[in-house]
Amino acid sequence: MKGFAMIAPNQVGWIEKERPTCGPLDAIVRPLAVAPCTSDIHTVYEGALGDRFNMILGHEGVGEVVEVGSLVKDFKPGDRVLVPAITPDWGAVESQAGYSVHSGGMLAGWKFSNFKDGVFGEFFHVNEADANLALLPEGMDLASAVMLADMIPTGFHGVELADVQFGDKVCVIGIGPVGLMAVAGAALRGASDLYAVGSRKICADVAREYGATEIIDYHNGDIAEQVLALTGGKGVDKVVIAGGTSEETFAQAVKMVKAGGRIGNVNYLGSGDVIIPRVEWGCGMGHKTIAGGLMYGGRLRMEKLASLITSGRLDPSKMITHTFHGFEYIEEALMLMKNKPRDLIKPVVIL
Amino acid sequence: MKGFAMIAPNQVGWIEKERPTCGPLDAIVRPLAVAPCTSDIHTVYEGALGDRFNMILGHEGVGEVVEVGSLVKDFKPGDRVLVPAITPDWGAVESQAGYSVHSGGMLAGWKFSNFKDGVFGEFFHVNEADANLALLPEGMDLASAVMLADMIPTGFHGVELADVQFGDKVCVIGIGPVGLMAVAGAALRGASDLYAVGSRKICADVAREYGATEIIDYHNGDIAEQVLALTGGKGVDKVVIAGGTSEETFAQAVKMVKAGGRIGNVNYLGSGDVIIPRVEWGCGMGHKTIAGGLMYGGRLRMEKLASLITSGRLDPSKMITHTFHGFEYIEEALMLMKNKPRDLIKPVVIL
Amino acid sequence: MKGFAMIAPNQVGWIEKERPTCGPLDAIVRPLAVAPCTSDIHTVYEGALGDRFNMILGHEGVGEVVEVGSLVKDFKPGDRVLVPAITPDWGAVESQAGYSVHSGGMLAGWKFSNFKDGVFGEFFHVNEADANLALLPEGMDLASAVMLADMIPTGFHGVELADVQFGDKVCVIGIGPVGLMAVAGAALRGASDLYAVGSRKICADVAREYGATEIIDYHNGDIAEQVLALTGGKGVDKVVIAGGTSEETFAQAVKMVKAGGRIGNVNYLGSGDVIIPRVEWGCGMGHKTIAGGLMYGGRLRMEKLASLITSGRLDPSKMITHTFHGFEYIEEALMLMKNKPRDLIKPVVIL
Amino acid sequence: MKGFAMIAPNQVGWIEKERPTCGPLDAIVRPLAVAPCTSDIHTVYEGALGDRFNMILGHEGVGEVVEVGSLVKDFKPGDRVLVPAITPDWGAVESQAGYSVHSGGMLAGWKFSNFKDGVFGEFFHVNEADANLALLPEGMDLASAVMLADMIPTGFHGVELADVQFGDKVCVIGIGPVGLMAVAGAALRGASDLYAVGSRKICADVAREYGATEIIDYHNGDIAEQVLALTGGKGVDKVVIAGGTSEETFAQAVKMVKAGGRIGNVNYLGSGDVIIPRVEWGCGMGHKTIAGGLMYGGRLRMEKLASLITSGRLDPSKMITHTFHGFEYIEEALMLMKNKPRDLIKPVVIL
Repeated sequence: MKGFAMIAPNQVGWIEKERPTCGPLDAIVRPLAVAPCTSDIHTVYEGALGDRFNMILGHEGVGEVVEVGSLVKDFKPGDRVLVPAITPDWGAVESQAGYSVHSGGMLAGWKFSNFKDGVFGEFFHVNEADANLALLPEGMDLASAVMLADMIPTGFHGVELADVQFGDKVCVIGIGPVGLMAVAGAALRGASDLYAVGSRKICADVAREYGATEIIDYHNGDIAEQVLALTGGKGVDKVVIAGGTSEETFAQAVKMVKAGGRIGNVNYLGSGDVIIPRVEWGCGMGHKTIAGGLMYGGRLRMEKLASLITSGRLDPSKMITHTFHGFEYIEEALMLMKNKPRDLIKPVVIL
Repeated sequence: MKGFAMIAPNQVGWIEKERPTCGPLDAIVRPLAVAPCTSDIHTVYEGALGDRFNMILGHEGVGEVVEVGSLVKDFKPGDRVLVPAITPDWGAVESQAGYSVHSGGMLAGWKFSNFKDGVFGEFFHVNEADANLALLPEGMDLASAVMLADMIPTGFHGVELADVQFGDKVCVIGIGPVGLMAVAGAALRGASDLYAVGSRKICADVAREYGATEIIDYHNGDIAEQVLALTGGKGVDKVVIAGGTSEETFAQAVKMVKAGGRIGNVNYLGSGDVIIPRVEWGCGMGHKTIAGGLMYGGRLRMEKLASLITSGRLDPSKMITHTFHGFEYIEEALMLMKNKPRDLIKPVVIL
Repeated sequence: MKGFAMIAPNQVGWIEKERPTCGPLDAIVRPLAVAPCTSDIHTVYEGALGDRFNMILGHEGVGEVVEVGSLVKDFKPGDRVLVPAITPDWGAVESQAGYSVHSGGMLAGWKFSNFKDGVFGEFFHVNEADANLALLPEGMDLASAVMLADMIPTGFHGVELADVQFGDKVCVIGIGPVGLMAVAGAALRGASDLYAVGSRKICADVAREYGATEIIDYHNGDIAEQVLALTGGKGVDKVVIAGGTSEETFAQAVKMVKAGGRIGNVNYLGSGDVIIPRVEWGCGMGHKTIAGGLMYGGRLRMEKLASLITSGRLDPSKMITHTFHGFEYIEEALMLMKNKPRDLIKPVVIL
Repeated sequence: MKGFAMIAPNQVGWIEKERPTCGPLDAIVRPLAVAPCTSDIHTVYEGALGDRFNMILGHEGVGEVVEVGSLVKDFKPGDRVLVPAITPDWGAVESQAGYSVHSGGMLAGWKFSNFKDGVFGEFFHVNEADANLALLPEGMDLASAVMLADMIPTGFHGVELADVQFGDKVCVIGIGPVGLMAVAGAALRGASDLYAVGSRKICADVAREYGATEIIDYHNGDIAEQVLALTGGKGVDKVVIAGGTSEETFAQAVKMVKAGGRIGNVNYLGSGDVIIPRVEWGCGMGHKTIAGGLMYGGRLRMEKLASLITSGRLDPSKMITHTFHGFEYIEEALMLMKNKPRDLIKPVVIL
């Protein structure tokens, strides 16, 4: 089969591979729509996962089941399915501890285009199909459905990590697609004043549609200072980090959050170590809790987040700026994520 | 001063009383708007609090500060203020334990028209003013502001007790004003499918506006059966009880909620004992947690819930069906709560 | 193979059956030690699970693996293993929601002597072996190890459901073996004053060894009254229910717990409905949360609870009053649970 | 009155001051026993709080009430009282949010020898006496009682911040008196394997008595490496930081904790910024939550922790290595904290 792959560090292209084989608990899925992710760029060009060769890229997709293993009970060929980017081993002790995303080791619930080929092939493999797939709801458009693979669960998990409560003032740092979903998630979980940090107009406009009450542009000065000014020096209750750098962004988050607040990070940190400023962190005693975690995956998560779309609470399509039709456009879509033109939020490829 | 009072069980009327005196931590407030509550009816006609004589009624109000005690720092005469129905003693050990509403004894954070005169007088007394008042936000209409005293915090607390999470299916039983705020709160905290149980058309219409996806009418059969039918026999993740009876409603809630679910009650139970059906409760082992609690009060709660209105997340005015102007209309407004005409949701009296 | 079975309601005896077959994820285990449980009595004589015929009894055991399925990675024949009474399907949506014990339906994580033959046979079947077995720690005596199947996780889960915190006053109702483990668990989780309700001297003595600071005997009057008297009328912070009845015990628990407290039930309720007294429950608003749940099972739970024994925090052997040697003594041991002689706490049968 | 004071940075000595005055909510207390704390050393010699002049030192004490304000209800002259190091303003919005320790600003619940004179005077002032004092339990020795002011609540809070659960493997970094109380607290909350990091023999011996199962000495190599070796490379579930440095200790903690684990810091960080190693923190996505907070104070906390001593769960006197008798020994006791002789854990001064 054909797939669009990381051929080697800094090199992508189309390759031919064997179609994956299906174990007794697994499914083989044919993609119906996929989306490239900044993580794919990190993988290829920034060595995020280390060296990989001839590995098919992509972890955001929806598809149609073409084969299932002998122990699979709930899915059959022909089923159209949501596929989370994270497909845990559900029996692992880490899953039993509530951290399925780390089943088998830290971050090891992430398998697509990491430990195995991703979704940018003619077919892809899904482990523990009954536990990791969910039926595509009737009538859901494919582009919205693809957002359920990673953008929605990642952005919403940031909100969960930050533990947003009714009436919290919240700052979301970064308004790329994950940040926008964090904005939507924060509004949907009861944030009141919602400060979104970003500078591109298209993102800012959509952030407002998703519930941001104020856009903070770092071109106008230190973002922590701006947030403190907007809150009368008191700061916000919660911060979601969906962009920025290890060295600078956490320091800003710690500065702008109240004692007793929480910072939830869902941003992949590609370089540097995280710096927590001592004094603003209360010399270690300010109860400014710092949490960071990879999105939760699996079937239940897909079903629950999908129900937010079908019940009309969330419309992820607002952030889809580029729609391609045809397998051959995967490369062009991926390059958008690399080059980030000003009119881009998120591209999808309908197959 | 004049006040509209419970003169004796089953008897209401206007009385004359001394204006309350102001202790060093307290404030005296003149009401700007008030609302009657079903609880006032429970108090007068159902013996909810036991016998009371010549006690001024009312616990929902906004007002203007006319006097403050010598230790009050943050408020001064002339300030327009939100006043929660629950005004705890913040230093009490129960408050230190996180249950200020029970400071000094179970439910003892509720003082208005319970342990002291309520807000239906020319003036009323507020204990620990700095901790229990909040400034009325600029531009907030008085009718919406009155909803912050009880309806919003009570309905929203039901959602907190039920611990609604992203994508939960939720059933709200009862769509009077508290139930409607529970509907709004559940939608605002990430519920997807949201079943609201009620039968009056005006309430059902507003419930849909607040986010109910389905209205369940008990005239059409057992509500638990209806919810189970709508969910393919699986039931809902969470239930908020904002109406019904001790004997029947909890049993229905237990039947309709999934194992691992939660039931949050904010309904005042006036008679009978609560019956939890053994088998549907998993013979005691089904992890169907039952929580019930009086709304949280105090300044912070007021400020945070008020910010949901000022940030545009919540519009409580949709449920205000009757607006009166003038102190003298308090009785008429109260009688609406007693007689519950079909076009009533919530009345307010602007003074 | 031979097994000791429920032949029909109210009838037990030895039967011959086919040795269970081993699916690809499963293991077949030969018991090394087993224990009868009051639940076995409920099953046979009280119709707890409905009619069952020729079903081998028993859900408390440790054993030696004799066969594993083709997909099992972590266990092999000859391994000596802990076996939890609850062996969930870990991929089920209920497990993904954190309630593996209800995987596939309320309480359906309980399979032994419920949906399939139990551990009182020459061999028994374990589903999802990698996720549900744990290695028997070196040097752990078999009798203590059997207590890890049900008594320890059930008693400790009561403490978790009640959410005991540092310095809480706690009442444990019932000091059979589960109640004793709740006493030990409460002490081990930071309870200070610890009231244990029971009347048999042997149980009371062991309860004190496990950390009870006071024994409350219902022969001396209403237990709620006694607890209130001991606490200056204030009541306890938390209650664990490990004995009693639906109709009476919950009412006592609600009476004796503070507003803001929690009640955790792990007692199987065999008849009647649960009655929550309205007034003492704060008319629905007292924040006296009522939780009840079946013990958590699976590998991680076994490993973690076993580590409490190996690290010297817990010695379950104090409650083992009767030790038999030989398969043929299973019936005698079981009958002890039925007849409850005054010198009995818990019997085990070493095979 | 006389007091032992920070006269200026790097200078201590006896001074004369006016006895503090008693506001309507306050109490004046005469100390019965006090203890110096490393924090006093940080204050005087490391500029922890900034410049202070003629400020009486000390925040660990028990005493006798000599005067109460007009609004104080629960205490009277002659009462012997526990006094927490942290005495919040309970009505503040931060207290209402659950963070009384930050009432009025981050860390501002800490008043003794910070915003006002401390307990090393002939008399000291306690704000909100009803909410911040607790009766000294009958029969509790004064030395143990002084440990309730700071050592016990600080060490135990580390355990709460790390959220230790039944069967967790836990590492406590630092076994000075706070670390020892974290060891005791972790054992008392259900830790199984409990690694305590320290090198002084006297501390190690007491750590074992309090429940440490292994002592890790940094002289034997990197402590994270040692913990990983002891746990088969898997790491611990939770870490409590009660010693070390900003730059190194958090990095070690992050390395040694499992994905999904928590780090609770109660160590005052005097210099540097906190460094979180990016890769070991899962590139921001490892769910290794970092919490740090000042101890909780107030009356309820004192009562609950005191009950752990009176119920026999905790004996803080094991760590008291030096006992002085007489006010004049405060200086000598304080200098012990500065010089840290090898046989010191904690000194107290009985007055």
